[in-house]
Amino acid sequence: MKKIKVGIINVTGYVGVELARLLYQHPNVELTSVTGRSAAGQKLSKFFPHLAVYDLTITPELGDVEIAFSAMPHKESAKECLPLLQKGIRVIDSSADFRLQNPQDYPDWYGFTHPAPAMLKEAVFGLPEIHRSRIKNARLVAVPGCYPTGAILALAPAVKYGLIAPGVIVDSKSGVSGAGRSLTLGSHYAEANEDIAAYGLDGHRHLPEITQELNLLDGSKNYSVTFTPHLTPMTRGILSTCYADLLPGKLSAGKKGMEELRQIYVDFYKDSPFVWVADASPHTKQTYGSNYCIVYPTISPRSGKMILFSCIDNLVKGAAGEAIQNMNLMLGLPETTGLAALPVYP
Amino acid sequence: MKKIKVGIINVTGYVGVELARLLYQHPNVELTSVTGRSAAGQKLSKFFPHLAVYDLTITPELGDVEIAFSAMPHKESAKECLPLLQKGIRVIDSSADFRLQNPQDYPDWYGFTHPAPAMLKEAVFGLPEIHRSRIKNARLVAVPGCYPTGAILALAPAVKYGLIAPGVIVDSKSGVSGAGRSLTLGSHYAEANEDIAAYGLDGHRHLPEITQELNLLDGSKNYSVTFTPHLTPMTRGILSTCYADLLPGKLSAGKKGMEELRQIYVDFYKDSPFVWVADASPHTKQTYGSNYCIVYPTISPRSGKMILFSCIDNLVKGAAGEAIQNMNLMLGLPETTGLAALPVYP
Amino acid sequence: MKKIKVGIINVTGYVGVELARLLYQHPNVELTSVTGRSAAGQKLSKFFPHLAVYDLTITPELGDVEIAFSAMPHKESAKECLPLLQKGIRVIDSSADFRLQNPQDYPDWYGFTHPAPAMLKEAVFGLPEIHRSRIKNARLVAVPGCYPTGAILALAPAVKYGLIAPGVIVDSKSGVSGAGRSLTLGSHYAEANEDIAAYGLDGHRHLPEITQELNLLDGSKNYSVTFTPHLTPMTRGILSTCYADLLPGKLSAGKKGMEELRQIYVDFYKDSPFVWVADASPHTKQTYGSNYCIVYPTISPRSGKMILFSCIDNLVKGAAGEAIQNMNLMLGLPETTGLAALPVYP
Amino acid sequence: MKKIKVGIINVTGYVGVELARLLYQHPNVELTSVTGRSAAGQKLSKFFPHLAVYDLTITPELGDVEIAFSAMPHKESAKECLPLLQKGIRVIDSSADFRLQNPQDYPDWYGFTHPAPAMLKEAVFGLPEIHRSRIKNARLVAVPGCYPTGAILALAPAVKYGLIAPGVIVDSKSGVSGAGRSLTLGSHYAEANEDIAAYGLDGHRHLPEITQELNLLDGSKNYSVTFTPHLTPMTRGILSTCYADLLPGKLSAGKKGMEELRQIYVDFYKDSPFVWVADASPHTKQTYGSNYCIVYPTISPRSGKMILFSCIDNLVKGAAGEAIQNMNLMLGLPETTGLAALPVYP
Repeated sequence: MKKIKVGIINVTGYVGVELARLLYQHPNVELTSVTGRSAAGQKLSKFFPHLAVYDLTITPELGDVEIAFSAMPHKESAKECLPLLQKGIRVIDSSADFRLQNPQDYPDWYGFTHPAPAMLKEAVFGLPEIHRSRIKNARLVAVPGCYPTGAILALAPAVKYGLIAPGVIVDSKSGVSGAGRSLTLGSHYAEANEDIAAYGLDGHRHLPEITQELNLLDGSKNYSVTFTPHLTPMTRGILSTCYADLLPGKLSAGKKGMEELRQIYVDFYKDSPFVWVADASPHTKQTYGSNYCIVYPTISPRSGKMILFSCIDNLVKGAAGEAIQNMNLMLGLPETTGLAALPVYP
Repeated sequence: MKKIKVGIINVTGYVGVELARLLYQHPNVELTSVTGRSAAGQKLSKFFPHLAVYDLTITPELGDVEIAFSAMPHKESAKECLPLLQKGIRVIDSSADFRLQNPQDYPDWYGFTHPAPAMLKEAVFGLPEIHRSRIKNARLVAVPGCYPTGAILALAPAVKYGLIAPGVIVDSKSGVSGAGRSLTLGSHYAEANEDIAAYGLDGHRHLPEITQELNLLDGSKNYSVTFTPHLTPMTRGILSTCYADLLPGKLSAGKKGMEELRQIYVDFYKDSPFVWVADASPHTKQTYGSNYCIVYPTISPRSGKMILFSCIDNLVKGAAGEAIQNMNLMLGLPETTGLAALPVYP
Repeated sequence: MKKIKVGIINVTGYVGVELARLLYQHPNVELTSVTGRSAAGQKLSKFFPHLAVYDLTITPELGDVEIAFSAMPHKESAKECLPLLQKGIRVIDSSADFRLQNPQDYPDWYGFTHPAPAMLKEAVFGLPEIHRSRIKNARLVAVPGCYPTGAILALAPAVKYGLIAPGVIVDSKSGVSGAGRSLTLGSHYAEANEDIAAYGLDGHRHLPEITQELNLLDGSKNYSVTFTPHLTPMTRGILSTCYADLLPGKLSAGKKGMEELRQIYVDFYKDSPFVWVADASPHTKQTYGSNYCIVYPTISPRSGKMILFSCIDNLVKGAAGEAIQNMNLMLGLPETTGLAALPVYP
Repeated sequence: MKKIKVGIINVTGYVGVELARLLYQHPNVELTSVTGRSAAGQKLSKFFPHLAVYDLTITPELGDVEIAFSAMPHKESAKECLPLLQKGIRVIDSSADFRLQNPQDYPDWYGFTHPAPAMLKEAVFGLPEIHRSRIKNARLVAVPGCYPTGAILALAPAVKYGLIAPGVIVDSKSGVSGAGRSLTLGSHYAEANEDIAAYGLDGHRHLPEITQELNLLDGSKNYSVTFTPHLTPMTRGILSTCYADLLPGKLSAGKKGMEELRQIYVDFYKDSPFVWVADASPHTKQTYGSNYCIVYPTISPRSGKMILFSCIDNLVKGAAGEAIQNMNLMLGLPETTGLAALPVYP
């Protein structure tokens, strides 16, 4: 079988390099083109010795491919993606540029006017567990942010079944690779090691994605999310601890209610091969390097508060792996093709 | 000036060894006796080469001291402390054995019947920022747990001033040394490194301490706490992210309300030299190795939720340093004596 | 094609669990039986949630398999392997029990008399890059230790070509998972984190393996190895920094000699798909989670000392991956079958 | 007693901020002036909240002080120090600008012509354990580099007593803070975490310092050092593992020789309060945050190779603490004044 040619725009960031790692495992596609700005003209293996199996040179422009992955930063990514779409290339964009449906969100949250607001309607929010059928025929998929992937998967069944009150807290703990490969004091080793702190308290850009999707799942409540991301001294992984008030009359009391809750989650994800519903508090390490998401819904026995957990690897299920999962759907392949590697533990 | 003789019961755990480190800096007291169970008869420096400056042998029984620090585990500690009290030795206990006022909490939370329930009335909960005056004359101080120290200091001013609704969430992230020096799979390096997870979801033993103290600060509301501790891949530090609903009419809207909130915290801690009220999201690293606690109260500009942060070093302000701070009060010394060392950053 | 049934003896240690992870990717074999001592009777997924894709119960005895992987500790492993061999099952043993050819090494280094010294002649030292042809027909393969794998691959070309004097220094830095899953103070998180130290200074058990293999590569010199392992605060990875004196007349001076040296390494490993000869100082992270070994030979421009580096993931190329690489050879499969996943970076 | 005014040039790097931390503990001096380039005009506490106890504003120029600590980078530091010396201010320089006696070393190793070669004669290499008496009267002290401090203290007794052959290997493992606060890819968290690698293989700038001092200790041998620094995933600490050949006839054989060796080290350091001679393999953690250096000399029982270890905290004994130790000598104070805090363990 002839392999489908795919390319990566901006291979030199962590999402780009992770796409290259994962695509090497894929039986149906071939990575034939990688672009980079300052790195153009150089061998991919010079920047990333562990990718020496690829004999690829970084180019300024994408070559002839059927599917393009964009790993450009927001605002820049739309500029790269729009001409490709016009050429008939299907695009999977890991930036935020096509995630939000309301054009006004771009000036409000990202500080720029969207260059193609009409495309926001066509673009599909690439969370396969929620939008699987629409992704299959999409020309343009907007891969969710890493935090939204974890938060939405933790909350979706509870929201869909109307179990919880609309005021939701998402307390997320992310590894440092989530901040990217650009150098900042916050991701300087001696600053980030042996430290944990919250950031983005004025409003993190992933907040509108989470809110948008919760309100799409249940349009009746106007969900309001308090989202507190924390930088955690580890390379990969996001644990989201979500708190919500259980609405009365939705679940039985005690153990029985917790079993009902778990069953709701199991049912919701029964066709989602990458989501595991755990029966104990999940660890980010249980997803390391893999495309799996572990969710764990529970109810505090003392306060009755619902606590909904999820764990992902921010660079895989939170970015590059999810992008490939979308590609599989777009190509009519089984969702797990090339992505079935188990987590690297310990 | 003659130095006061002090001793440490169970010097071989992390609280004991940290007491020994900190006491070396103290100008008014001298560590003259250290006990340990399996280590008895051996030199302290054999177990802890960095304590070679002390020429001390570990003994099975405490020698002649004026003040005893107990670093025994709960249940065992009371057995050691009670005879000392009878001999007239003042005791500073880092275990949970005298922290809870209600004797029934011991069978409920710790699985044993308290051997001296009458002492629970006399014992002082050793959080100097809250119980300073009672500590001065105490014979028996129960040093708070590491999580309660952070959580109570984050919440106390808001509770005292009646700002918040009684349903409070405490999402805490702790370094692994909080689990002690006993070997467990959870604190095995390869398991804890590159991982974050919640634990104690059925009810962590520090929960009743937090609830007790909040309800002592404001007896009118019956505070209910949802407490979720997380094990974080770092040696030291606890960040507590506390969520609460602001009651109406308590603060002005917008920036002005945030300034009022900050001023309430500054005022509350104006005589507490170890509490800093930050004006930005605090980092556990900013307290590393020191007795300082950083608190940061804020209000989410989107959801209006109050978020009250605190950072401590769990082994210092959360255990050994706080014990010495109590001792200073008991001896009529300035609270900061021997404890003024700044955080080790980075 | 029908898959070949394989089993893992002692799946509950880190080598066992890593074998299970890697075998899941293998297209030609199926893991059908896993044993464990205290865990017998329980589901594999109970111990390792990330292995829930396997519907396996841990058993006390190995089921019907064609190939058995032993991940038992030394001394215990031989007891498990010998009966299997008698039944005609081919065995790949990750313990030290069949690595050393001289029976006297077992009492000297491991403190027990070998139960089947005759098998030491038949067993093949399972370093494919050195013993590839013998492995193909082996009934019993002794997978090298993690340190010997790295050290021998770093040194082999220089030894084979007689470039270096026989006094060799191997200064190795290993991640903590190399110490296994059994609880020890040395691998307690708070002790191992933010720390580096040498250990095994009286003679580490991997020393005789290294010496044995160097003297097999070149029997004319009687190599003497000073081996200093260091415990490094990371989960996975071994960097070996090997020092040797270049013999006169072997290489040209200056840059030209360094190119000759590199070419010797490239030639030596030209048929070894898992060994990469780097052209810059290698990083353990460049092998994380993969079966690759990176070697880098250089000459200090100031002192003329040869410095020969290697990096591996101690649990993959240093244990479970190498075991599967041996299995591939034994089954007549391409060496890389099921093992081609690239390193997880960053 | 009136406190002596001291200042820090370039307080915003890790050496500068560590000087500020340590000086706060000093009973005889007062930090009254701190400079910074881009930070001038701002409060010190804005950059470093943990230094809020100082009410200092960062200035472009140093104020009126008796002693100046320079924490400027090399080349820039000399420009700052020379005018201060002319004003009669005693200077303790943490850069390399006055460490090397041979002016030619500056163009060779640092790429600039030294602006005041005459001062290289007057400047004292500020390793108190070796140059204590000269430091007392020095106007200008050049604090050794972090690696040289560790390497020289590990080797000095063996060199001084002529025990070893002149070809010496120094294999050092350093925490990432040694690379400073400037942002580089090598000290980016996701790159440095879970990784170890050697660097500076073409010749690290600390090599000529080490060689210079060994040849000053014993001018008869022309020591040649192979120095391999490694970046280790921890914030602080340097472990140096030094290898040397024992010269014949210097020590008895076996255990007795090892005792003689240890005694030589004990005697050499008997008046050096910050050097501990260990009797087991030392851990960097045993020096964390403190000015102590642990040395451990041993002989490999198999190969007879001498292995000489040292551990320091690179920011304290390797930089800021050593600078203050020098200041104490210059002021006629006990060497340990303000520096006696014990290591922060675990």
